[in-house]
Amino acid sequence: MTYLDYAATSPLLPEVIDAMSAAERRYFANASALHTPGHLAMNEIEHTRGLLAEMINAEPEEIIFTSGASESNNTVIRTFEGHKIITSPLEHHSIIEAAVIYGGEEEPALYSYMLANNEIGEIMPVKEQVKKAHKEGAFAHSDLTQVLGKLPIDVKELDLDYATFSAHKIGGPIGVGALYVRKGVPFKPLIIGGNQEKKRRGGTYNTVGIIGFGAALEHLKKVNSWSLYDTKVRELRDKLAERILTEIPGSSLNTELERDKSLPNILNASFEAAEGESIQLYLDAEGVIVSTGSACAAGDAKPSHVLMAKTGDAEVAHSSIRFSFNPDNTEADIEKVMEVLPGIVNRLQQISTVTMRSK
Amino acid sequence: MTYLDYAATSPLLPEVIDAMSAAERRYFANASALHTPGHLAMNEIEHTRGLLAEMINAEPEEIIFTSGASESNNTVIRTFEGHKIITSPLEHHSIIEAAVIYGGEEEPALYSYMLANNEIGEIMPVKEQVKKAHKEGAFAHSDLTQVLGKLPIDVKELDLDYATFSAHKIGGPIGVGALYVRKGVPFKPLIIGGNQEKKRRGGTYNTVGIIGFGAALEHLKKVNSWSLYDTKVRELRDKLAERILTEIPGSSLNTELERDKSLPNILNASFEAAEGESIQLYLDAEGVIVSTGSACAAGDAKPSHVLMAKTGDAEVAHSSIRFSFNPDNTEADIEKVMEVLPGIVNRLQQISTVTMRSK
Repeated sequence: MTYLDYAATSPLLPEVIDAMSAAERRYFANASALHTPGHLAMNEIEHTRGLLAEMINAEPEEIIFTSGASESNNTVIRTFEGHKIITSPLEHHSIIEAAVIYGGEEEPALYSYMLANNEIGEIMPVKEQVKKAHKEGAFAHSDLTQVLGKLPIDVKELDLDYATFSAHKIGGPIGVGALYVRKGVPFKPLIIGGNQEKKRRGGTYNTVGIIGFGAALEHLKKVNSWSLYDTKVRELRDKLAERILTEIPGSSLNTELERDKSLPNILNASFEAAEGESIQLYLDAEGVIVSTGSACAAGDAKPSHVLMAKTGDAEVAHSSIRFSFNPDNTEADIEKVMEVLPGIVNRLQQISTVTMRSK
Repeated sequence: MTYLDYAATSPLLPEVIDAMSAAERRYFANASALHTPGHLAMNEIEHTRGLLAEMINAEPEEIIFTSGASESNNTVIRTFEGHKIITSPLEHHSIIEAAVIYGGEEEPALYSYMLANNEIGEIMPVKEQVKKAHKEGAFAHSDLTQVLGKLPIDVKELDLDYATFSAHKIGGPIGVGALYVRKGVPFKPLIIGGNQEKKRRGGTYNTVGIIGFGAALEHLKKVNSWSLYDTKVRELRDKLAERILTEIPGSSLNTELERDKSLPNILNASFEAAEGESIQLYLDAEGVIVSTGSACAAGDAKPSHVLMAKTGDAEVAHSSIRFSFNPDNTEADIEKVMEVLPGIVNRLQQISTVTMRSK
């Protein structure tokens, strides 16, 4: 199988599986409990908290563990319930929909801009947005779910007040996320009840999951993940992009490949007069696993809101495919894609009722 | 080690560990994705959904997976934001605190009564409360976190509109819960964004965790858990209660032992003029793991709100210990407790400044 859907979720790293297996037997107690097995579990949670804090240049007490990025995003947005929330059309639904529900007109505002988008990989001018926010007396959040492990992150240098992270995009477990909350900024818990996380997030600590997150963070450091993405992964991504443009008529890129314009691991391409979901299904039948956009929006008949915002063209949006890589991918994966993709696109274009504009 | 804190969390069952280990490698994809690995993951999620639905007499589409009981409870309470919320002082903080934050005066109300309490095991007259709620045009929720696997549950017979469940209280993983939502009743998602769970709960599906929950549910059926708790566990619990009352001066029970009055696995006892946390720590040093109440409230200087509501006596509340069992406990665990507990209580009573009323 050629797996090119790492941005949707990354399979557990072997080190993560090992760490969680050991933890399941060793750290079985409720980490909030005041007995020894509880304390032992809590120590492990604090270890992961320290690792993440160090990696993003935060203090450990500025990190709150959550059930995932959607919860982290929702928590920040709801903190500003009734206030003005300014965000971009490229954000994840857990920002956009929450902003619609909770947003109001009362000042001060929250600015929420992801540093890099999950569908096309676009890098956004977050630093400028943060400056603008602070100048207006507003607060600044960034969804860094897709960035962790791909680009170095320094929340102090970005001057962020809040930032969202997820374990399963870096080979950690699903169901574990984190939220950076700068000391002294407003905060309203979303999961209420219980003293966990200094009353900032109720619910029994997911000790095993948090240990798995820690093992994934340690892996990032060990392999110098940022460098791997910047070299090996970027080369693969760019090679696939070049071959698609060269070998597939009617193809175009929705991702700008320049170093500062996009994450190195995401390539979004459109195939004129070929429907994205059909391409995905035919690739699937050949053992090539890709997606048409965010898995969170899968099943929607609507085109991707991100591609609509970027292109304003429903046809381009409907004909798009996201290829997302990780360092385990090889040249063989590119070969495999290019062995089957041109034929699939061609067949779909043949039966399409849409006239190819490029013809 | 003598573990008697199963109500705080139950270590993963061997079958759950095995199921999750297999799942980590096999069901690695994002379950929302439209490709084959995504579909395979989704099938497993639906399998667990079916198991839980069958066990509580619900329809599969009436089950929503969450990150745990606190999230499930919060979700129901927030659905009735601004409306009257009627609940009991014995509820978990994720109900009581949420009701304070979200509750209002607008009709219709929500009644939220747990079927059995987590600190003293008390069984509450939920069926009558549900009737009362419906008679008033209100809706009815019950937190069944402590009940699953201990007593048979039939949401239709109880006539509930909502019910909360947790995986880790039955030997499944922490970080996985469920919410029963009767067809047609009001519902407002708490975790927003994404099409997961028919737009009722955003966030990437915790496939491995949900598979673990399923394995724990299958275990309940296989061992006929309800019968084990009603016989073996009840006998152990009652034996410990009897020995405590007989052998420890100044002891009293906060749990009523009659079959219909309490869960068979929880025993809460107070020890006059001995501080609960001190007893817990000394027991811990002897390898006996118990708690002073809910782990979610651990670290609070305040006495348990449940015991205060039941006894109105801060001294009784401060001197209480919860012993919670599961079918793995044996007579040897009771022996171990009674080998060390009387001496610990006696030493604490000797140094206490509180005069023993029973002397």
